[in-house]
Amino acid sequence: MYEANEDPSVHGVLIYYPVFGFFPSFYGGSMDDYLRDSVSFKKDVEGLSFTYRFNLYRNIRFMDAPSSVPPSVNPSPEPSALEPLLKCLLPCTALSVVKILETIGGYDLDLPIGERMKGKVVSIINRSEIVGRPLGALLANDGADIYSVDIDSIYHFRRGQLLQTTETPESAVRRSDVIVCGVPVKNYKLPTAWVKPGAIVVNVASYKNVDEEELLKVPGVKYVPLVGKVTIAMLERNLIRLFAQYHAEDSPGKDFKYVLENRPPMMKG
Amino acid sequence: MYEANEDPSVHGVLIYYPVFGFFPSFYGGSMDDYLRDSVSFKKDVEGLSFTYRFNLYRNIRFMDAPSSVPPSVNPSPEPSALEPLLKCLLPCTALSVVKILETIGGYDLDLPIGERMKGKVVSIINRSEIVGRPLGALLANDGADIYSVDIDSIYHFRRGQLLQTTETPESAVRRSDVIVCGVPVKNYKLPTAWVKPGAIVVNVASYKNVDEEELLKVPGVKYVPLVGKVTIAMLERNLIRLFAQYHAEDSPGKDFKYVLENRPPMMKG
Repeated sequence: MYEANEDPSVHGVLIYYPVFGFFPSFYGGSMDDYLRDSVSFKKDVEGLSFTYRFNLYRNIRFMDAPSSVPPSVNPSPEPSALEPLLKCLLPCTALSVVKILETIGGYDLDLPIGERMKGKVVSIINRSEIVGRPLGALLANDGADIYSVDIDSIYHFRRGQLLQTTETPESAVRRSDVIVCGVPVKNYKLPTAWVKPGAIVVNVASYKNVDEEELLKVPGVKYVPLVGKVTIAMLERNLIRLFAQYHAEDSPGKDFKYVLENRPPMMKG
Repeated sequence: MYEANEDPSVHGVLIYYPVFGFFPSFYGGSMDDYLRDSVSFKKDVEGLSFTYRFNLYRNIRFMDAPSSVPPSVNPSPEPSALEPLLKCLLPCTALSVVKILETIGGYDLDLPIGERMKGKVVSIINRSEIVGRPLGALLANDGADIYSVDIDSIYHFRRGQLLQTTETPESAVRRSDVIVCGVPVKNYKLPTAWVKPGAIVVNVASYKNVDEEELLKVPGVKYVPLVGKVTIAMLERNLIRLFAQYHAEDSPGKDFKYVLENRPPMMKG
């Protein structure tokens, strides 16, 4: 992997987790954490390494953003003399859900970028670091109220904040405009009686977390049974972006190497 | 804290943990993790933020090192045209133990830097992310074999590696040239019968983990009952380094801002 990080003919590194699982690492955390953070951000097609995670949760969209202060803390950073050029990579599965919601009416495209989920309530039944948590942060950073449901807790995410809530999974889902199911067990089924008319239900689990026949009886419901193909398209999108940013030969001065060597990236701040 | 990060009259930020403890964060992990990683490395006098942790475990000593590949993986990186200038900050308590060991004979100063703990066996009874784990990594990266003992496990650290071991706390301590005790409870006492003649025993806990009278009966033992004053000196050392690297007005071109804006720091790799 270190060789791939340095090899100019390699543009993306994808690690098929779990590799070592939770086996502890000399480097802190688990061996899989070590792998995840050892992929160079120049090659991190999955968008899971530290810098991309750091930026995603802080709603920092560019590697060469003028400030590392989250926009929720300081909405008007001092303008930089230079327009940012290098987009941060986002995790493929979470990104696929965003793109699906943009396409099928989950986002209000008449609102300004960053506000297009304003007023929307979303329940996400999964809080993994790979899918549920980054997806919750992306949608919260676009203005939604998120109920993040996991096996032993429910949290309310709102742009940069994790709030305690008295909602239950049932009460949260009943209020939700969008419900994302990502429960990695065969026998979990979302109770369709909780789904309100017109809601969007997206199944990101490899199991069907939904009784489709029952769900489709809910008036106006929109149902997305799987996201795998869109996720692969997002992986390709990320790879193309990494390629372009790695050596944009047609636009000298706009590639990773030039930009990061010639001005301060976010991590400097 | 964000203001302090940006304020040129502030040179160090020290957070007195725990603040929020394990309360979960929107940003992933706990709220205290979020605080720890939100301190700019320009102000991180405790050396606990991501970039410094990343570099410590990988034995990368400079922010502007030519490569992010750990020396244990690639001992001879391509030489950089530029000598590295910006030293990484190390966590104060772990650093204080290193300095104490250098002073009282734990390090072999006749060996080359990076090898001065070669052949030494060290037991560290504590594996916190603040003290035991970074100290183990620092000493392992200087050539020692470390037995890292915590309440439910014992690991063997050796330069970049975490190995499983059949040693017990007793057998590990009996073999150890250096024993570091950091057990945060009042009633823990290191069994002095396990300490071999001539060993060095360092107590980093706020409680006395050692029956001093009994310990001093072991022939040739060297005992350091507390490290607080040296830790404060290391904090001052770190602050002076941050100040110098932040704006070295007497040596233009050698400060954080100049160096990081004009060539690739490690995090770019």
